[in-house]
Amino acid sequence: MALKLARRMANLKASEVREILKITSRPEVISFAGGLPAPELFPIKEIKEASRYVLEHSGVEALQYSTTEGVHSLRVWIAERMNSLSGTNLEPDNILVTHGSQQSLDLSGKVFLDEGDVVICECPTYLAAISAFRAYGCRFVEIETDEHGMDMSCLEEALRTQERIKLIYMIPDFQNPSGRSWSGERRKQLADLASQYGVAIIEDNPYGELRFAGKSHPSVMSLDNKGCVLTTGTFSKILAPGLRIAWIAGDKALIRKYVLVKQGTDLQCSTFTQLTIAKYLELYDIDAHVTKIREVYGKRCHTMLDALQRELPEGVTYTRPEGGLFIWLTLPEEIKARELLVRCLEKNVAFVPGGAFFPNTSRENTLRMNFSNMPEERIQEGIRRFGDALREI
Amino acid sequence: MALKLARRMANLKASEVREILKITSRPEVISFAGGLPAPELFPIKEIKEASRYVLEHSGVEALQYSTTEGVHSLRVWIAERMNSLSGTNLEPDNILVTHGSQQSLDLSGKVFLDEGDVVICECPTYLAAISAFRAYGCRFVEIETDEHGMDMSCLEEALRTQERIKLIYMIPDFQNPSGRSWSGERRKQLADLASQYGVAIIEDNPYGELRFAGKSHPSVMSLDNKGCVLTTGTFSKILAPGLRIAWIAGDKALIRKYVLVKQGTDLQCSTFTQLTIAKYLELYDIDAHVTKIREVYGKRCHTMLDALQRELPEGVTYTRPEGGLFIWLTLPEEIKARELLVRCLEKNVAFVPGGAFFPNTSRENTLRMNFSNMPEERIQEGIRRFGDALREI
Repeated sequence: MALKLARRMANLKASEVREILKITSRPEVISFAGGLPAPELFPIKEIKEASRYVLEHSGVEALQYSTTEGVHSLRVWIAERMNSLSGTNLEPDNILVTHGSQQSLDLSGKVFLDEGDVVICECPTYLAAISAFRAYGCRFVEIETDEHGMDMSCLEEALRTQERIKLIYMIPDFQNPSGRSWSGERRKQLADLASQYGVAIIEDNPYGELRFAGKSHPSVMSLDNKGCVLTTGTFSKILAPGLRIAWIAGDKALIRKYVLVKQGTDLQCSTFTQLTIAKYLELYDIDAHVTKIREVYGKRCHTMLDALQRELPEGVTYTRPEGGLFIWLTLPEEIKARELLVRCLEKNVAFVPGGAFFPNTSRENTLRMNFSNMPEERIQEGIRRFGDALREI
Repeated sequence: MALKLARRMANLKASEVREILKITSRPEVISFAGGLPAPELFPIKEIKEASRYVLEHSGVEALQYSTTEGVHSLRVWIAERMNSLSGTNLEPDNILVTHGSQQSLDLSGKVFLDEGDVVICECPTYLAAISAFRAYGCRFVEIETDEHGMDMSCLEEALRTQERIKLIYMIPDFQNPSGRSWSGERRKQLADLASQYGVAIIEDNPYGELRFAGKSHPSVMSLDNKGCVLTTGTFSKILAPGLRIAWIAGDKALIRKYVLVKQGTDLQCSTFTQLTIAKYLELYDIDAHVTKIREVYGKRCHTMLDALQRELPEGVTYTRPEGGLFIWLTLPEEIKARELLVRCLEKNVAFVPGGAFFPNTSRENTLRMNFSNMPEERIQEGIRRFGDALREI
């Protein structure tokens, strides 16, 4: 029987990335598609020890319900980490623990968006943010984005002329999918414009700690003094995504609203995984661990950039990230990345076509390459096959 | 700066239960407020062994991203469990693993509800379901409910006369808050009416396995042959709520829609906690464990009913549950449970006033008592103090 569903279900489609991931789970495929961390770096032994300790010494607490806000010691750590890394001045009550950054985005949609409201985003933007916000019936305004961030005159024009703008969504460091980072100057201009127009910024920062070159800039949150900025962070990229623990930080009164919304959404995050992470952070040196990740990703990125330079025909351009997981390629206008993907899959190589990263426009000659999940030899081999496929088209 | 929030935020308030839980976390308080399982029954050692095994043998898998649908072996177990306990005929693709039953409700709201749609519910109904659905801007129609389930003529009247009904929300066994269960006959009538009117049923079943008296009835899902029924289940009440793993079952095409919605909401549940539960189920005898829970809860319920009979003045009525966690009390009309709670808190006893369990009406002379979380001596002492407070008013 056909039941009547909500309107939002009409245009819903599967995430292109997660669908491609299903195809590419065969071991012979060289996949540059996912945003998967390097599994060989997971601190399995340490997490095993931390979880053992938690169940041995706080088993009842770990397995029982706990507060929606999240485990207090973990929120203390997160606030201090953000303060030391990004120049903020946060306390535990500025932090809500979430079930992955995707939930931070979903809750942001729920807190801010009515049907017909507008979200301003980069161009391209993170495709799973598009699905998170679109579920609340919003429209998107894409702002042209270069290697320093959004074009500020386009942004100001949009803020001045568009009605019902509620959110500006941006990724400050090593953006997904472009790999680009915002300059310090653009961050400041963004914070100023948002507070001038009374619009909230979602500063989505899953990759900030993964810098392997260049120098970092202050977070947008640290440049704002009006409480306009909500900043996300996650353990998925610095520890392990399978634990599903992340956070969102912001003005205390606003985070209190997020807490109420999370209460109705899923009550709370797993007490057990939160306590396990808190214990890991107490027992081990996460800085040493992150340093190791940075080194490996830096080498892999370098290897991929070298291979791209060697293997690609003229007319293909790509970004040169200083951190994170992704490189963004622009093909000659007439080549469609989706068609190239079909040919690449025949050669057991995968990537994500770029079209899905634009909510309104559609630039089908773009694509995203992930470099974190494959060892260097496979990166070289994969890019060689990719170059072959490209020349064949 | 006051940012513009979504309309749904205007009437949002904290869950009364979770707020009372904060007050009652002091050890001297005898709390009948939460829906907390008995922590002394948590199989801590077994979960420790299962999680150790998972990290030792499948560490990379446990810590990496995995599919939105959920871990396959766990979905196989869930489908088989439901088939053997509730007469359904489910396969793994009928199951989506969720982040607690609360998420099953939130996703149901997202799949079905547009602003202004109607959810039909029992009277009283589960207060966290009210907040989950209300976030999608729905209205509620409360149907009078007796000791056998909803009043079928009221339900049919509502289905015939109300516009935009999308969901019928009900708890078949040991309802929260009333402790009552639906009769077999009412279940069948409900399934027939729902399919006749093309409305989906959310059969929320967190407590079904916790029967300590009487005999069970077929699930509503097993009585429906049109694919109208979605049934939830959870490990929170038979294993441990701190793991946050539950599920929703339904027609395959519909569950596929839920999967897409969950993808945009939080990608997936923790691979680590899912694999830990799957391993626990493989290594240990959950039936023996559930039998133990049933026995303890049965004794506690019995103790509470005895104490209520002994301590309560005339004019107070209460339900006699055959399972689950809750007893529902109705006071004389002129007594407000919220005022009684203030007096009880002075005596270090807590419960949840019933008003919050009615989305539209407000029956302030009702209250919910939980019997699963306190040992028998404290139940007797707590009800004695409760009786004192009641006589004082």
